[in-house]
Amino acid sequence: MFESAELGHKIDKATFRKEVPKLRAELLDVQYDVLEKKEFPVVILISGVDGSGKGETINLLYSWMDPRHISTLAFSAPTDEERERPYMWRYWRALPPKGKVGIFAGSWYSQPITDRITGRMRRSEMDQLLDDINRFEAMLVNEGALVLKFWFHLSKDAQKQRLKALEKDPRTAWRVTKASYERLKTYDQLQDVAGHVLRVTNTAHAPWIIVEGTDDEYRSLTVGRIVLESMKKRLQQETRAQVPVAPPIVRAIDERNVLTELDLSQALAKKDYERELAKYQGKLSELARDPRFKEKHSLVVVFEGSDAAGKGGSIRRSVEALDARQYQITPIAAPTEEERAQPYLWRFWRHLPRTGRTTVFDRSWYGRVLVERVEGFCSEADWLRAYAEINDFEHQMVAAGAVVVKFWLQISADEQLARFKERQDTEFKRFKITEEDWRNREKWDAYVSAVCDMVDRTSTGLAPWTLVEANDKNFARVKVLKTICERLEAAVKNGDESTK
Amino acid sequence: MFESAELGHKIDKATFRKEVPKLRAELLDVQYDVLEKKEFPVVILISGVDGSGKGETINLLYSWMDPRHISTLAFSAPTDEERERPYMWRYWRALPPKGKVGIFAGSWYSQPITDRITGRMRRSEMDQLLDDINRFEAMLVNEGALVLKFWFHLSKDAQKQRLKALEKDPRTAWRVTKASYERLKTYDQLQDVAGHVLRVTNTAHAPWIIVEGTDDEYRSLTVGRIVLESMKKRLQQETRAQVPVAPPIVRAIDERNVLTELDLSQALAKKDYERELAKYQGKLSELARDPRFKEKHSLVVVFEGSDAAGKGGSIRRSVEALDARQYQITPIAAPTEEERAQPYLWRFWRHLPRTGRTTVFDRSWYGRVLVERVEGFCSEADWLRAYAEINDFEHQMVAAGAVVVKFWLQISADEQLARFKERQDTEFKRFKITEEDWRNREKWDAYVSAVCDMVDRTSTGLAPWTLVEANDKNFARVKVLKTICERLEAAVKNGDESTK
Repeated sequence: MFESAELGHKIDKATFRKEVPKLRAELLDVQYDVLEKKEFPVVILISGVDGSGKGETINLLYSWMDPRHISTLAFSAPTDEERERPYMWRYWRALPPKGKVGIFAGSWYSQPITDRITGRMRRSEMDQLLDDINRFEAMLVNEGALVLKFWFHLSKDAQKQRLKALEKDPRTAWRVTKASYERLKTYDQLQDVAGHVLRVTNTAHAPWIIVEGTDDEYRSLTVGRIVLESMKKRLQQETRAQVPVAPPIVRAIDERNVLTELDLSQALAKKDYERELAKYQGKLSELARDPRFKEKHSLVVVFEGSDAAGKGGSIRRSVEALDARQYQITPIAAPTEEERAQPYLWRFWRHLPRTGRTTVFDRSWYGRVLVERVEGFCSEADWLRAYAEINDFEHQMVAAGAVVVKFWLQISADEQLARFKERQDTEFKRFKITEEDWRNREKWDAYVSAVCDMVDRTSTGLAPWTLVEANDKNFARVKVLKTICERLEAAVKNGDESTK
Repeated sequence: MFESAELGHKIDKATFRKEVPKLRAELLDVQYDVLEKKEFPVVILISGVDGSGKGETINLLYSWMDPRHISTLAFSAPTDEERERPYMWRYWRALPPKGKVGIFAGSWYSQPITDRITGRMRRSEMDQLLDDINRFEAMLVNEGALVLKFWFHLSKDAQKQRLKALEKDPRTAWRVTKASYERLKTYDQLQDVAGHVLRVTNTAHAPWIIVEGTDDEYRSLTVGRIVLESMKKRLQQETRAQVPVAPPIVRAIDERNVLTELDLSQALAKKDYERELAKYQGKLSELARDPRFKEKHSLVVVFEGSDAAGKGGSIRRSVEALDARQYQITPIAAPTEEERAQPYLWRFWRHLPRTGRTTVFDRSWYGRVLVERVEGFCSEADWLRAYAEINDFEHQMVAAGAVVVKFWLQISADEQLARFKERQDTEFKRFKITEEDWRNREKWDAYVSAVCDMVDRTSTGLAPWTLVEANDKNFARVKVLKTICERLEAAVKNGDESTK
């Protein structure tokens, strides 16, 4: 893996001085092109062994480009806000928006590599995580990002010499600590682990670029040129690269699907409703206060459903049982400008609750495979890959202790028509029915297909869908509450659901 | 202060049941009006003694309005990300955007009250903080917010009875803890402190509303009606209330000002420049690594200046001395949609660095009293009050350990013309001069007035302006670097500059 980075690559200072001015001018130029186009972010990972010139290279990129449009994120110990969210949360929040360059000094690779060397992580666990990382990077590329992953390599001898040289120079001596020499001892282990990591994550869309770190001029010029050429090439690319992450949709050949099988006639009489509602609200209120929940879990509830299916009412009845200081309802409307400059899932990541808290999503990330698919707001490739991305997203939440409960509220076409008419006749202006609601109704069949595909592909063991027969509002509300209680209870009583 | 809240106010359940449906419908209606108009946020503080029904009232507001457009923030111990920023940072980040309702369960008042009761805070310190809070709330109101501050009161007997009642009911018994009874012991102290706090912060624009908490129906209906009436009234208000916070501008009657007094002929020969640059870059690099800096301080550098004054070059020379992993450059362009939905200073608060880190602002919050004033992008009242708001903002940074260094780079009109022409003749397209630059030039005198007023009003002992004679780029860059070093050194060597 690292052989070609132990050849003693170097260039002389004269060549370097000759080459740099042109490189700088071109880099600056292409950086402004990227900034003006605002079509994709540039994500640069700078990793490698100690003393291989990571910091120097980052500082050099700053001096070669316009530093005002670069951000660098170094990741040391996670903050408590980060620790209470999935592993990748801190990296999501650090992603550069379209048009900007984000440098990751230390990245999602740092922790698995360190944990593996120290033995805190098993090989199988690491491989799982690397698999997650591969899919995360595929998502980034599919969302348009240019992802450049650099690994700076030094032979063992070169590392030793470099540390000595740094130590000798009073301007850099501070950088050499006891820890540096300790890492020298684990050099062979690092090579082993890194070799494995790089091999497994050396994907076509985000390959590793291994650079010999011994010679400053060689390393700097190499990185500078690669960054330049990659940005140029990405600018010329007409369409985004599409990394296949989801198999195509296969249709069932009979007419049956998960929605036709629902018994929408199920109903609950008022008296039963009131009794059951009180019962489950009480139970939910208790569960949310359970120390086992408050210390280890969070709750994420997703509401999707046909227009007029009663999402609002169900949400209201559910949160009534909770303390307003412990939950947030996040209604999903059109993304803001800052959200549009990020990968699709970014705007949901930012709302994930801390431990002990609840977020209710009124519509959600499933918009991609529902309205965006049906209305053609995104390409087929985009919504096809969304299934896998969503599963990864939810899996990460669950791994961090979240209980993810997802509801699809289904009503019949007749019931919808009746509710639309009723709303139209109501004087209370807020429930006026819009033209769009009638238009959506015409696409009933397309929505049915989308919902069925969604359930097939995203109802996972860790985050299953609950289909709610919602023709009768009482029945629906109680089913929703009961389901939340059951899922929470299972998580609280069985600590194993969480790997946290 | 609390006399009228010990009269045993109550209403009977029948009246309550009769009143509520109408109140709910009206509240929902006015909430949607606020949401559609998107002109101001509603900030509701719910404070008061234990057991006075704070939680119940919040939950009731949720059930009366559309919970999807309300957020409630409870503030317990600050997270480590919050602890490393000014006291008010966590409240700024929790402010609701325009159109939404934000409920603060516990607020900026909680800590001073608690700290005063336990004796951790001196009376004089508390009074200072209350003064800050008054100005913060004035800012909120001036920015358009509707601020409703509720204080729920109980007589000592009523509180005891209420705790007992809560304890007896199995559904609420969990809420009564040992701490509740301990707070009962400090009842008199709380009354003393709260009485003082409420009196001092009972401003015309954000008065306290004291509500007797004993009777659930009375308290709920009172709060509901006040929220309704206040929102209605605020909606009818044509223009924003203007709370005076800055005296009017007084002109100097001779022609002299801080800019005319600058000796713009100062220059530095290339050789001297290179020596000085290296010297101060080395020094800055050392200071930024000093443990006394890294553990107690952060650095905020503001660059303002005439067009073509060389801000970019000065920033670049300064950050070259720093590790890219420890600083961010924040170029200030037009605010994003999310930023426009917040008070003016919000978009700067969000970029404040954590301890040990640096943020460089390329243009800044001073835009309000410079370009926005000159171009008429905001009202005179808005920019007049900005001086005081900015001083408060910077004062809070310094109190939290930040070293705030502000530069105004000044060139002569002739030098600017020369630079404009040079840029126009340069082929390198990025420095093309725009129409706007020429237009700004015509407003030279207006900008001079704005700059002089700015310096007069915001050059404070804790965050002074440094005017930089920038006709000679070398001279300017060295002066900038030298100033940053001096300010950092003073902070590092004299721990007293920070009150942290």
